[in-house]
Amino acid sequence: MPDDFERMWADLAPVGRSASSGGYFRQPFTSPERELAVWFEEQCVARGLRIEGDDFGNVVGWWDTGSGPAVVTGSHLDSVLDGGAYDGPLGVVSAFAAIDLMRARGVVPTRPVGVSVFVEEEGSRFGLACLGSRLATGAISWSDARELRDRDGVALGDVVPGGSSSLLAAVGTFVELHVEQGRDLVDRGEAVGVASEIWPHGRYRFDFTGAANHAGTTRMEDRADPMLTYAMTVLAANKQARLAGQRATFGRVSVEPNGTNAVPSRVTAWLDARCSTDAALASLVEVISGQASDRASRDDTSLVVTAESVSSSVAFDPVLAAAVATDHEGGDWPIIATQAGHDAGILCAAGIPTAMLFVRNPTGISHSPLEQASIADCLVGVSALADTLERLAR
Amino acid sequence: MPDDFERMWADLAPVGRSASSGGYFRQPFTSPERELAVWFEEQCVARGLRIEGDDFGNVVGWWDTGSGPAVVTGSHLDSVLDGGAYDGPLGVVSAFAAIDLMRARGVVPTRPVGVSVFVEEEGSRFGLACLGSRLATGAISWSDARELRDRDGVALGDVVPGGSSSLLAAVGTFVELHVEQGRDLVDRGEAVGVASEIWPHGRYRFDFTGAANHAGTTRMEDRADPMLTYAMTVLAANKQARLAGQRATFGRVSVEPNGTNAVPSRVTAWLDARCSTDAALASLVEVISGQASDRASRDDTSLVVTAESVSSSVAFDPVLAAAVATDHEGGDWPIIATQAGHDAGILCAAGIPTAMLFVRNPTGISHSPLEQASIADCLVGVSALADTLERLAR
Repeated sequence: MPDDFERMWADLAPVGRSASSGGYFRQPFTSPERELAVWFEEQCVARGLRIEGDDFGNVVGWWDTGSGPAVVTGSHLDSVLDGGAYDGPLGVVSAFAAIDLMRARGVVPTRPVGVSVFVEEEGSRFGLACLGSRLATGAISWSDARELRDRDGVALGDVVPGGSSSLLAAVGTFVELHVEQGRDLVDRGEAVGVASEIWPHGRYRFDFTGAANHAGTTRMEDRADPMLTYAMTVLAANKQARLAGQRATFGRVSVEPNGTNAVPSRVTAWLDARCSTDAALASLVEVISGQASDRASRDDTSLVVTAESVSSSVAFDPVLAAAVATDHEGGDWPIIATQAGHDAGILCAAGIPTAMLFVRNPTGISHSPLEQASIADCLVGVSALADTLERLAR
Repeated sequence: MPDDFERMWADLAPVGRSASSGGYFRQPFTSPERELAVWFEEQCVARGLRIEGDDFGNVVGWWDTGSGPAVVTGSHLDSVLDGGAYDGPLGVVSAFAAIDLMRARGVVPTRPVGVSVFVEEEGSRFGLACLGSRLATGAISWSDARELRDRDGVALGDVVPGGSSSLLAAVGTFVELHVEQGRDLVDRGEAVGVASEIWPHGRYRFDFTGAANHAGTTRMEDRADPMLTYAMTVLAANKQARLAGQRATFGRVSVEPNGTNAVPSRVTAWLDARCSTDAALASLVEVISGQASDRASRDDTSLVVTAESVSSSVAFDPVLAAAVATDHEGGDWPIIATQAGHDAGILCAAGIPTAMLFVRNPTGISHSPLEQASIADCLVGVSALADTLERLAR
């Protein structure tokens, strides 16, 4: 007898959880994330799902019922550093629960149904978001990806064999259920929503270089301090994003030598930028980079900006979205845009008909221990997902 | 036959040196610094100096000649992260070389002469500069110091036994030779200078707290981003120090969770501030803290400022300084102030008559692999130190 939603949720709760912050540390191919991968396989076995993996660590549990193009649903099990419980795992637990619900309803699909997990969706270890789905769709080649390194210098090629993936060959439609990462559904008073599009977004590394020196004896006017250039760039990014109605964040920084009594020699920081159009994104990053370079010349420092990943706008299939949104008794679910990247966006960009369901997050906060979703809303999400799978696999 | 200056210098050159930057990583009680401690003892043995240590890791090699109050000279062997070769070791190597020179001249002191090494002068591991000399003089108690922790959470009490020190009981005069950490001697065209005073200085921890959130989905106006408050504080500190003709630096920062796609929950940064008077230091830190707090209220973040260490102005004995400065054939060495803290300042503040000699640094750069001193200038420094010891121990 498979576990129900609440039982599965309770099983996952302690894995990779920080006792001090209450947040999760489930970086790919570390022990908490691998523990979740084992749990995933156990859940597949308990439901008689056939497990198929690829050479990158992605996996699908197949309900081999029916034939023809498959309907696959799932999400990811990794987290950002000190992340919330719902971002990723909610979609995987809901997928199992939806299958349980379909079976309880006596549904026998005429197409295969799969539950998927893609690795390193957050990019919190190797720096590239949606790494597993990019590899599975061929959006990035293994020869490029294998050289990606984590903060300790370990390469992706050191932790997975690499090679190829045929996981997506039989997929006709993909559906991802995800906790909402903003307050749109709260404002609308709806438990569930459907995605219209994903904003374009990118990650850009800013390398500010100056000259290390003694913090006490070096006159202010003799310094080449990259921390000053970085600080001005943080404020410029925030101001420009506000002016443009877009998003820009410096959330990660690394300083050398990072000593209290030393003017730094180097500051490396990462800009996360998201805009409503590709042109707006390019323009925003150009303005921020330009202001940073101007300041660098005044600070006697230098700046190199490297685009580590840039994803264009993704528009989900509007006919499919409308069908998913009308698929409940109380009326239409709202169709909303999101600024967050998802594996669903990568699969959509690769030409697979794709839809996303969001479940209301009362705090509106994500990538934080404060991320939330009520059990009642989660069960509405499971029901909406089961309805969607039932229709697509009919 | 003891090694001469250049031979000793060559022995130390590879220890703890980074192949990539050329800088030194000699944090206290790590293997490179312990290697230097072993080297120190070997040099003492080679010269017949009696080794006396204390419970904190400080050590003196005694030339037990004569009686009465001793004359001690020395410096430190630890470095900042990615530091230069001269800051610390130059004073220790020069002390041995000065004893060699005195012996070659046939000098037989009537007082004991010691060569000292104090641990953790830089504060690069446990956060408190001049830790060894503060413990030896009682400026900090062992019960407070034992709880100081490094970045990995290791306490000082875990790496040294702690207890007491009688190393300074017999000391009548202390002299520290040090590489200059600015360009004063370069501007004056002098190989050697003598210290008049050390500016007041302090280290202040700034804890900026906000709320972690998703960098893509969180509207700019819904954020409580402590990175913004930090960035403004960096620029404010720089501007206020320039306006006041003083020094202020943010060289070390730590961010949580430090992920590219997460608005940070917390930014911790350390302000290093140095001023010409105690009042100016208090005023500078007050203005910077005030501007930071104002910004925090606008950013919906909070700020706590903690003074981790504050050292008042130290004026060296002017009669002793004048005597040291006149002690060479070409005329008077210049008497100059310094903005850098030193163990000599701690001993002076503890009431021990103390002097400092500086050796010219052509780059003016310190706490960096670019720190320099010519062999010719170093040998002038050794000679000046030998002259000083000879006079004081006569």
